[in-house]
Amino acid sequence: MDIKTFRRYGHAIVDWIADYMDQIEEYPVLAQVKPGEIADRLPKTPPVESEEMEAIFNDFKRILLPGMTHWQHPSFFAYFPANTSEPSVLAEFLTAGLGAQCMVWQTSPAATELEEVVMDWLRQMLGLPEGFRGVIQDTASTSTLCALVCARERATGFGINKHGFPNGSAQKLIVYTSEEAHSSVEKGVRIAGFGKDHLRLIPTGANFAMIPEELGKAIDADKKDGRLPCCVVATVGTTSSTSIDPLRPIGEICDRHRVWLHVDAAMAGTAAMLPEMRHILDGVEFADSFVFNPHKWMFTNFDCSAYFCKDPKALTSTFEILPEYLRTEVDPRVKNFRDWGIPLGRRFRALKLWFVIRYFGIRGLQQKVRSHIELAKEFESWIRKDPRFEMMAPVTMNLVCFRYHPPEGNFTEEELERINKGLMDELNRSGKMFITHTELKGRFTLRLCVGQTNTTLGHVQRAWEQLQACVTHF
Amino acid sequence: MDIKTFRRYGHAIVDWIADYMDQIEEYPVLAQVKPGEIADRLPKTPPVESEEMEAIFNDFKRILLPGMTHWQHPSFFAYFPANTSEPSVLAEFLTAGLGAQCMVWQTSPAATELEEVVMDWLRQMLGLPEGFRGVIQDTASTSTLCALVCARERATGFGINKHGFPNGSAQKLIVYTSEEAHSSVEKGVRIAGFGKDHLRLIPTGANFAMIPEELGKAIDADKKDGRLPCCVVATVGTTSSTSIDPLRPIGEICDRHRVWLHVDAAMAGTAAMLPEMRHILDGVEFADSFVFNPHKWMFTNFDCSAYFCKDPKALTSTFEILPEYLRTEVDPRVKNFRDWGIPLGRRFRALKLWFVIRYFGIRGLQQKVRSHIELAKEFESWIRKDPRFEMMAPVTMNLVCFRYHPPEGNFTEEELERINKGLMDELNRSGKMFITHTELKGRFTLRLCVGQTNTTLGHVQRAWEQLQACVTHF
Repeated sequence: MDIKTFRRYGHAIVDWIADYMDQIEEYPVLAQVKPGEIADRLPKTPPVESEEMEAIFNDFKRILLPGMTHWQHPSFFAYFPANTSEPSVLAEFLTAGLGAQCMVWQTSPAATELEEVVMDWLRQMLGLPEGFRGVIQDTASTSTLCALVCARERATGFGINKHGFPNGSAQKLIVYTSEEAHSSVEKGVRIAGFGKDHLRLIPTGANFAMIPEELGKAIDADKKDGRLPCCVVATVGTTSSTSIDPLRPIGEICDRHRVWLHVDAAMAGTAAMLPEMRHILDGVEFADSFVFNPHKWMFTNFDCSAYFCKDPKALTSTFEILPEYLRTEVDPRVKNFRDWGIPLGRRFRALKLWFVIRYFGIRGLQQKVRSHIELAKEFESWIRKDPRFEMMAPVTMNLVCFRYHPPEGNFTEEELERINKGLMDELNRSGKMFITHTELKGRFTLRLCVGQTNTTLGHVQRAWEQLQACVTHF
Repeated sequence: MDIKTFRRYGHAIVDWIADYMDQIEEYPVLAQVKPGEIADRLPKTPPVESEEMEAIFNDFKRILLPGMTHWQHPSFFAYFPANTSEPSVLAEFLTAGLGAQCMVWQTSPAATELEEVVMDWLRQMLGLPEGFRGVIQDTASTSTLCALVCARERATGFGINKHGFPNGSAQKLIVYTSEEAHSSVEKGVRIAGFGKDHLRLIPTGANFAMIPEELGKAIDADKKDGRLPCCVVATVGTTSSTSIDPLRPIGEICDRHRVWLHVDAAMAGTAAMLPEMRHILDGVEFADSFVFNPHKWMFTNFDCSAYFCKDPKALTSTFEILPEYLRTEVDPRVKNFRDWGIPLGRRFRALKLWFVIRYFGIRGLQQKVRSHIELAKEFESWIRKDPRFEMMAPVTMNLVCFRYHPPEGNFTEEELERINKGLMDELNRSGKMFITHTELKGRFTLRLCVGQTNTTLGHVQRAWEQLQACVTHF
């Protein structure tokens, strides 16, 4: 493509994105298509001859766009947010344009050094301990897998990397997490070869947070049986209810038993920027590793997962590879981030963080996050005042767990599930808002999470109005 | 940021990227900075107050840009390429602007269905078997790790996921690859818990390709000793010399012993688009999994690694998780790509592939790849004609392995290494070209890989001229 054509379509796409951002509320939040509908409109074989950019861009708008769920719609209240912001999008343009590969220092010195710097900015912003060192991973799933493999290696003197899982007690490495932990913990436990049988799901209390005493008991029991407690994954902000495992007592237990403590604060970690929320990380100094995702609630395009560790040597000793073709003169004096995680190749992801932190400033970021928390509390207050609804979990920050409970009649759990599922589906089918569900102690629960960059009181109010209008059908 | 400001900087950045693409040859290919130089120019603490976009964009140009190695410079001959193209960059703009999360069908139906379609286009383009199904991963390292975990699980009836590595023979799972295989194989073997001791490095012949008979012997020996051969990783296009493991005899051995065959064709797979190169994949029907990276040699921005498998059920059975909060109505009828790999969150990466394949068409892509191969053969012919140089490996496609051998005097391997390292460093310090090195059978080797999108005969000629001028200093 000649530069003139690139320039033309570059400008056209910038204008299209600007319009898209401006008019995003005109799109249905959840894609209103059926399985197979988009694929049916696409040719089954690749084109032999070159096609015009005009045709491709038009097909993007005509064929694909109707099949997108709009994560940046301010009435997106589903899952956890994957929010973005204009400065982040601009940085992603530059990253794409540079097309740099950031696997080792030499292949993009500025990318490596900027990553060191902005990760330390994040460390300071969240109040993480001074010695923690950071690296960007793609997702919290991958970060947690990294932590589990590091824990496995540290517990065995880096022996499984060399010799595989041995016979005997060292083979019986045990991982602990709460019954409310994210599915990525089990996934990581499986990939790293521990086996699901060696994952203990520690009970949670009425607030859905891990009960430290139960963790202590489980570790004691395993030790007594000749097993080797290896890693505890504590969650700050669970996916179902944003419950917060108490890091200090958990950390003290880990410290006593010399067990690796990994903290999964994928979404909620961002809230620690606020002085009034800093308490969620009380005891984080016990952690050996910590992850939170700026791509969730810090206005930074996916993917950008911030992984911190106390002892980078444990990380690099676990993942280091040094084939001749990757050796450089400066290796002893620089960080080669390829050894800080699983993939060798790496995008220039620090740039968008740098743009976002500088553009908003700490104060600007704090304001946005604080307003999301206030909006969730506001929504909670409406739910609490209306006898047709019940709260299903404490609101610790920006997520409200609730359900509709028809005022008349006795309903079984199954009936309530059916009613609330119907309610959720009808709301989502409207295209005006998007919420998702979970299960809390066996009870079907609706989740409304406030985290999209531009969500305001008006959007939350309209969600409440739609909810009220909708329940009359059930 | 208001839309007006976004629009303004969006346009400014498009113009900047267009100029950058246009003038890229004015930049030194390899960043000419010292370790710490970029970091020293960046503040150690994050800004409290918001900064102007103008200042941020200027700092990008002023502070960061001098620290970038320019992977899109047509005189980039180092490593393997990570090439891009204009349509791919445009698609990345859209992906950034949409900010969609493509973990399950519901969260972006169009992204899921487009991924199915374009991955099948790629399958057809490379001539992979009909039944193969594809998914986009971030890198070949991750793809190979996925293959190793799937192989591990299939070999143990999906038992290690459940129970961990057992005592006894099933614990002694063995992985085979050639001594020339990429470091990611060992890394994957370690992460998946096999242990490096259980990785057999099969000898290679004079052409640096795996010797199938040696593989057969190693498998027989392990079986005799009560071990369980689990996975063979064959390489089509090794990193050091682009040597090609013969898939058919290797596949027949795997078939006979019911061992998982994974094919790592990270860079070279792209060449299979050419009818005259299709032979590199002869026997690929024996493969259980296959990876190649469109982000290497198919003009598609990093990251985009194309992973294919014969039995998707083996993949999803290995990685499937189904927490309540991710369940959707349509699950039985759609693909949820979160279960096709390690991370849960996924970018909309199919879009750039769609743009690239349509914009170039199969014919356009073939032309580019074919011209790269011709340029490498041209460079090889110059090397062969000049008695001061020696070829270090056969040129199978776009990589030339050579070294300088001063015509007078006897030199030890150490001296030749010192001389060629000095030569390489001087060439790279010039900023006019960038090559890297490897070691082949203990001999220091220079690598010149032709793969950047816009590399022409002129660039390769100039590299040859610079090389000739430079050797006079040694």
